[in-house]
Amino acid sequence: MVQNIYDEPVFFEGYGRLNRSVHGLAGAPEWPALRSMLPDMRGLRVVDLGCGYGWFCRWARENGAGEVLGLDISEKMLDRARAENGDPAIAYRRADLAELSLPKEAYDLVYSSLAFHYIEDAERLYRTIHGTLVPGGRLVFSTEHPIYMASVHPSWVTKGGGSRAWPVDHYSVEGRRTTHWLGADVVKYHRTMATTVNLLIRAGFRILHIEEFSPTAAQIAADATLAEETDRPMFLMIAAGK
Amino acid sequence: MVQNIYDEPVFFEGYGRLNRSVHGLAGAPEWPALRSMLPDMRGLRVVDLGCGYGWFCRWARENGAGEVLGLDISEKMLDRARAENGDPAIAYRRADLAELSLPKEAYDLVYSSLAFHYIEDAERLYRTIHGTLVPGGRLVFSTEHPIYMASVHPSWVTKGGGSRAWPVDHYSVEGRRTTHWLGADVVKYHRTMATTVNLLIRAGFRILHIEEFSPTAAQIAADATLAEETDRPMFLMIAAGK
Repeated sequence: MVQNIYDEPVFFEGYGRLNRSVHGLAGAPEWPALRSMLPDMRGLRVVDLGCGYGWFCRWARENGAGEVLGLDISEKMLDRARAENGDPAIAYRRADLAELSLPKEAYDLVYSSLAFHYIEDAERLYRTIHGTLVPGGRLVFSTEHPIYMASVHPSWVTKGGGSRAWPVDHYSVEGRRTTHWLGADVVKYHRTMATTVNLLIRAGFRILHIEEFSPTAAQIAADATLAEETDRPMFLMIAAGK
Repeated sequence: MVQNIYDEPVFFEGYGRLNRSVHGLAGAPEWPALRSMLPDMRGLRVVDLGCGYGWFCRWARENGAGEVLGLDISEKMLDRARAENGDPAIAYRRADLAELSLPKEAYDLVYSSLAFHYIEDAERLYRTIHGTLVPGGRLVFSTEHPIYMASVHPSWVTKGGGSRAWPVDHYSVEGRRTTHWLGADVVKYHRTMATTVNLLIRAGFRILHIEEFSPTAAQIAADATLAEETDRPMFLMIAAGK
């Protein structure tokens, strides 16, 4: 079972104050890049793994998706999703992605935003997703970037001349990383870029497109704190086809 | 035209003392990973882009390749290749990879070791390679890893507690990087992982496998200086199919 920090009160409260919680997809700076990797949503059967407040499920419906299934481990998240982003064609259900089971060839699109780094057994997950997609279906997901996750002390370092750099160490040492975020000890699993790509290919996927989040000049002008994201990618986004 | 540092006497002399120059493929710690991505060589028509001393061309022939073409910008390298790794079925010729032209559907395998990071226009290069491969052919190459190349001051930093980290900065700022190596100012071109993968896909390739060099325990036992390579990948290796 994956760690369910989202149901811890302090974390849930902190998470609810993040831009992406308050403003939904518009508050997630990587959303435009992720959106550009999505197919035409009209008529698609969609499952969202780690749906959170349901912002994407609602967006999918508003853009023509047929039926949408939102899965999350957090009951608190699902309650808010049902209350704020409900729709007769969206089902919100509790599921542990570490033990995910989905019907065979039942979906056209599997989507996931920033959930896969909580999963230890990515191979099992990718195979399950491949199995539930119809031929020609697509997986589009974001995850924390391995450059962002690798270090055992992931915080900016200052170099000579005051310049800023992100530390990378233990890159090839995959597995558990614990960080302190929003008042909680968050357990994540570091995988190299090669492992992620190779596991997807081995599960039967064809890599269609990769994005590494970097803010646009307009995004930096609107939010100066995003400037540091040009120095190292925080998010990895992959589109893969069956 | 790409920079031809290899014909500068001081650099050529220094390069000749590297393990990989003295011991050939056996002196390149990433070779086992790269070799594992190669097809059965028997009967293949092979071109090696940046063949250097010709170690790979000779290996290809010894493993059954039919005809082999080794291209390099350095006349000094080519002279040594002809003298030390010559074979009636190997042709060594001078070529500038920045202006590469190859016959259509003429090769089964395009191989390149640590040359592509000298090339500014990767899209042109990948399209040329795709054009010269037969359907079902393969491109297998190594290049300096974007994690290794991104920083404008690429040298280890020491963090609190004396731990070592590799700095990443300017990751999303692609383009020219100048480093001092073996007595020369070496010009390289940084591209993100996403750019490399997406350009290959856009040129028509299917990504088959990715490796990021990390030494094995046996390699570290034999050469303790390799231990730091577990902290950040120096080499990226990609196999892509037409």
